[in-house]
Amino acid sequence: MNLPLGYLYSSTYAGIRQVEKDDLSVIVSGLPAKAAAVFTQNRVQAAPVRLSRRHLAATRGEVGAILINAGNANCATRTGDKVALACCKAAGAALRMPASYVLPASTGVIGVELDSKKIVDALPRLLGGLGPERFDDVANAIMTTDLVPKTAFAEVKLRRGTVRAAGMTKGSGMIHPRMATTLGFVMTDAAIPLPRLRLMLKRGVEKSYNRLSVDGDTSTNDTLILMANGASGVRPDEKEMLRVEAAITGVMESLARAIAKDGEGATKLITISVTGFSSDDAAGRIARSIANSPLVKTAVAGSDPNWGRILCAAGYAGVAFDPAKTDIFMQGVPVCRGGLAAPFSEQELKAKLDAPECEIRLSLRGKGKGSARFWTCDLTEGYIRINASYRT
Amino acid sequence: MNLPLGYLYSSTYAGIRQVEKDDLSVIVSGLPAKAAAVFTQNRVQAAPVRLSRRHLAATRGEVGAILINAGNANCATRTGDKVALACCKAAGAALRMPASYVLPASTGVIGVELDSKKIVDALPRLLGGLGPERFDDVANAIMTTDLVPKTAFAEVKLRRGTVRAAGMTKGSGMIHPRMATTLGFVMTDAAIPLPRLRLMLKRGVEKSYNRLSVDGDTSTNDTLILMANGASGVRPDEKEMLRVEAAITGVMESLARAIAKDGEGATKLITISVTGFSSDDAAGRIARSIANSPLVKTAVAGSDPNWGRILCAAGYAGVAFDPAKTDIFMQGVPVCRGGLAAPFSEQELKAKLDAPECEIRLSLRGKGKGSARFWTCDLTEGYIRINASYRT
Repeated sequence: MNLPLGYLYSSTYAGIRQVEKDDLSVIVSGLPAKAAAVFTQNRVQAAPVRLSRRHLAATRGEVGAILINAGNANCATRTGDKVALACCKAAGAALRMPASYVLPASTGVIGVELDSKKIVDALPRLLGGLGPERFDDVANAIMTTDLVPKTAFAEVKLRRGTVRAAGMTKGSGMIHPRMATTLGFVMTDAAIPLPRLRLMLKRGVEKSYNRLSVDGDTSTNDTLILMANGASGVRPDEKEMLRVEAAITGVMESLARAIAKDGEGATKLITISVTGFSSDDAAGRIARSIANSPLVKTAVAGSDPNWGRILCAAGYAGVAFDPAKTDIFMQGVPVCRGGLAAPFSEQELKAKLDAPECEIRLSLRGKGKGSARFWTCDLTEGYIRINASYRT
Repeated sequence: MNLPLGYLYSSTYAGIRQVEKDDLSVIVSGLPAKAAAVFTQNRVQAAPVRLSRRHLAATRGEVGAILINAGNANCATRTGDKVALACCKAAGAALRMPASYVLPASTGVIGVELDSKKIVDALPRLLGGLGPERFDDVANAIMTTDLVPKTAFAEVKLRRGTVRAAGMTKGSGMIHPRMATTLGFVMTDAAIPLPRLRLMLKRGVEKSYNRLSVDGDTSTNDTLILMANGASGVRPDEKEMLRVEAAITGVMESLARAIAKDGEGATKLITISVTGFSSDDAAGRIARSIANSPLVKTAVAGSDPNWGRILCAAGYAGVAFDPAKTDIFMQGVPVCRGGLAAPFSEQELKAKLDAPECEIRLSLRGKGKGSARFWTCDLTEGYIRINASYRT
């Protein structure tokens, strides 16, 4: 798959992580790009989140570079705001753009001072390594407890030429929707006006990042930035815009699925589909409740077709529905019909649930058109091992 | 501690569990008792929950016996309602009371038919064994994945004599507040009018069972029944009523703490105290959010003073507050002051967190008087082991 035109990437090791693995990276757009972004809804917001908001407001949605560090969230520290600003200033000076054209993003431990000197000192090395082909290096450098880098690509042929989109994301714990979750960066070389770009991001997030849960913890640093630099020279017409939006949404969905699949300790991706409710919102709340249930997630880990836990989790979602009209399917096999046990071969279904991807479908009988899809992962002993010893 | 007068207990093995361990039990009040009860708020409600509601309405809050089975939730089954009614009828006939004076309660797996014949056949053996001293046998027989039985006692000396209260409860998974959680039975021999008894239960639950979380799953069978049979011959006067209420609330708090302590796989009881918010409700939401965070719970499991996760969980509770005015203490040691890292000896605090009881305190600076206490437990690999294989 071809990368979008006009973006440069680089990563290096700045000494922020304890292990020597790239921890500082940058995405640069040759032309100033339009940028739309969503940030965490947590009341506790990291310094880079606050500064990114300010910068986007100051530039009216234009961006030249994103400077990302892993290994330290730059959150709840004395010097956080100063550190974030100093790094943007230094990067801006080196890239010959105003500091406000640089958006900072951080991920890692909360409450530990981040030393701006490490980042500033590493900038020459970082920027010296910029290249259009180093996309994967950045996808690797932004990882924390992730096991695999997460990227997604799309290409759309339009009347006047081809436009491309590429995205990368990180995160496998402290993952919960209700907003952009984790760090995510999506680049396109289509020319898209800012209001349209914002709409695309808003609608796309609703179908991707906001339909994702690993452990129900909403991080203090969540940031998702969508950039459009127009380097393809192609500005989609109104009809084509919808195709571009579909492609970009597809990239975001792939990234969200990849996060769930790489959830801390996860062995299985779980896709939850809910249909037949009065609204998409009601269906979404049911799906989220199932996705967040540790009992459902451990049952899937054990390949246990324990549908009672699914029905139970739906029951406490705060949505009115008639259990007697509820059907539940696991891996396509009906396990509950009208709220009651359906006959199925326990052994066969258990074997099917050993697959790396599991599907849970809950459907309400009747005329409701509200539906939702949600991604999560199983909950295993690995999650505990990772999180009982992450920091110290 | 003396048990309340006028109650008889018994338990037996009826063949509902696969392992031969008592699974059927009964609590009988010699005199008809006033009873107040709270039930699960899950939309999916087990047959015994529905029938108990009906019976309490029919008798206007009087009860003669509680018939409890473990090993099967009698929920989401074809014959659930019939089974629950048949068991109450048979028990009522044997005890010479209307069926409506018998409240059924069930706990165990969802979606598997419960055979009423097993229970009806076991009734002669069960009722033949009734005795005032068999309280602990019932506390044992209602357990599922519990490791230890959970009981609590109180005695209050009043002007005209002494009244006693005793409670038992079960549950270590599918535990979440917002309502009576799990099965709980509290008996007193004080004479308490029904409206007062209901008020006591309502206020007591708010301070005990509704301040408890193991895994955030609200069960379909949650039932908490408070009975007052007046067998002490003592009717507290208005002033004494408050002392009796305090004693009964104390019993419920002990039971709730015991559930958290015996949370599935738990090695530590965590008490979360939140102070300084605008209302008890706001403080409660903050406390609940911290209690439900898998990242906080795994950090405590690993004795990791990772206060950033605590601040983060407070941040997504949906309550407005200023992180810069937030202090956090773990085991009494300040770890965060004004939203920033406080200096503390990591090694010393780590050793303190190895204790079987851990305290997390979050306090907001200012004039707010709203506070809340909440109990939960750490999240360990044991929880996963238990729940990945509970049913099959």
